[in-house]
Amino acid sequence: MSSVPKRAKLDGAPADGNASAAAGNNEEESEALEQIDACQNEIDALNEKASEEILKVEQKYNKLRKPCYEKRSELVKRIPNFWVTSFINHPQVSGILDEEEEECLHALSKLEVEEFEDIKSGYRINFHFDENPYFENKVLTKEFHLNSAAASENGDWPASTSTPIKWKEGKNLLKLLLTKPYGNKKKRNSEYKTFFDWFSDNTDPVNDEIAELIKDDLWPNPLQYYLVPDIEVEPEDEEDNEDNEEEAFDDEDGEDGEGEEEEEDEDDK
Amino acid sequence: MSSVPKRAKLDGAPADGNASAAAGNNEEESEALEQIDACQNEIDALNEKASEEILKVEQKYNKLRKPCYEKRSELVKRIPNFWVTSFINHPQVSGILDEEEEECLHALSKLEVEEFEDIKSGYRINFHFDENPYFENKVLTKEFHLNSAAASENGDWPASTSTPIKWKEGKNLLKLLLTKPYGNKKKRNSEYKTFFDWFSDNTDPVNDEIAELIKDDLWPNPLQYYLVPDIEVEPEDEEDNEDNEEEAFDDEDGEDGEGEEEEEDEDDK
Repeated sequence: MSSVPKRAKLDGAPADGNASAAAGNNEEESEALEQIDACQNEIDALNEKASEEILKVEQKYNKLRKPCYEKRSELVKRIPNFWVTSFINHPQVSGILDEEEEECLHALSKLEVEEFEDIKSGYRINFHFDENPYFENKVLTKEFHLNSAAASENGDWPASTSTPIKWKEGKNLLKLLLTKPYGNKKKRNSEYKTFFDWFSDNTDPVNDEIAELIKDDLWPNPLQYYLVPDIEVEPEDEEDNEDNEEEAFDDEDGEDGEGEEEEEDEDDK
Repeated sequence: MSSVPKRAKLDGAPADGNASAAAGNNEEESEALEQIDACQNEIDALNEKASEEILKVEQKYNKLRKPCYEKRSELVKRIPNFWVTSFINHPQVSGILDEEEEECLHALSKLEVEEFEDIKSGYRINFHFDENPYFENKVLTKEFHLNSAAASENGDWPASTSTPIKWKEGKNLLKLLLTKPYGNKKKRNSEYKTFFDWFSDNTDPVNDEIAELIKDDLWPNPLQYYLVPDIEVEPEDEEDNEDNEEEAFDDEDGEDGEGEEEEEDEDDK
């Protein structure tokens, strides 16, 4: 009997029928509860085995996808501003991009998302940069340790870390943006004020919406964002931009992708 | 060139660097884009195969779990009010239970959640009832068709359906509850006012929080709710019940589960 956790009293429950329900916890019920508990253990064990098998499938396909992602990274290098354009066109990620950060992110030549071998324990995002006027680093890495038994034992789980940014003199965007008037920035739709705020903030690694969007949305398919601008972002602010939005739609129907069409569009209207 | 979707104009984006990015869409970039698109198709195909394999694992374990769930259902029948108690103790589900509905749900003898064979297309929840004063039905079923190609072709996807309830005379809880003063009900923490409101409402099958909680939380492990009362629900309303909550904690530390301990508890204090 003591092996089965007993049902706690239904405090706060109305007296009509639950009192009698609570009072009916006799020997036969206790036996049934023990057996339900045994059933539950069987179900839990099956759930665990299912999770393990699913993990193996995910690991297998992570390996199979890897060469595709590497090939894609090489191709992306041939397209200037691929990643910054994809970021700008992403409805949520665009919300944390300050104008000057966008300028800086033109130097972002390569993005990498690496899930750890056991997937559940975490992942890292590597931002590779060309030489740029803002900082010395070649790679900025944000790494998430979310479910590691080893880390848990050390008491430092969950956690995220990010590469300290070696800003060039007078170019620390984290400081510069603090001094800029708010009106100079786009309206934010996120808890993070700017991209480098997000990158440097490791206070809540478990609920990092931006990191998850990069890992689960931008990284698996950036092309959908590179090719299509985010015309629906902050519609309440863009009422005065309605004509521009329509132009963007018209543009998609155009027959070629030459950049000068932008100017033509302006002339057409 | 025409096989690659062209990048739409970055309307609304600041002019600093993006105009030049948009203008750089030359022949070499177009070729790279086509190859990225091919990469993306490979990745998508791998993702699809991964999903299929994961589905097979889930199907396999659904079959393995089935006899456990059936055995559990038989055992649950030996415990009066197992399901209504679990509902009452569930932090979210309790929020839609009107007192009179709780009374009615004492007749709920069996709960079943059946995922459709392909899992993704939907599931049904069967509520089996003993003879009761409220309605004639032996089984009330709520069924969700969420991702069925066949249903989609008919234009009736996604959709949920629920068994029409054959209320006994003067016992229609949906009508009765409308006439009750609000003060007679517990405070709701959900979009649904009451359990039968939820059961009968099929307006938003995709975001049915209660159905998902029953399928993914209560059904996989009801024992955790049956055994432990939800002492944290609506704390702002239960300040005057603090003593009762403490009793519930004490109760869990007790050594046996005899129902009469409830009375003893009252005497001890």
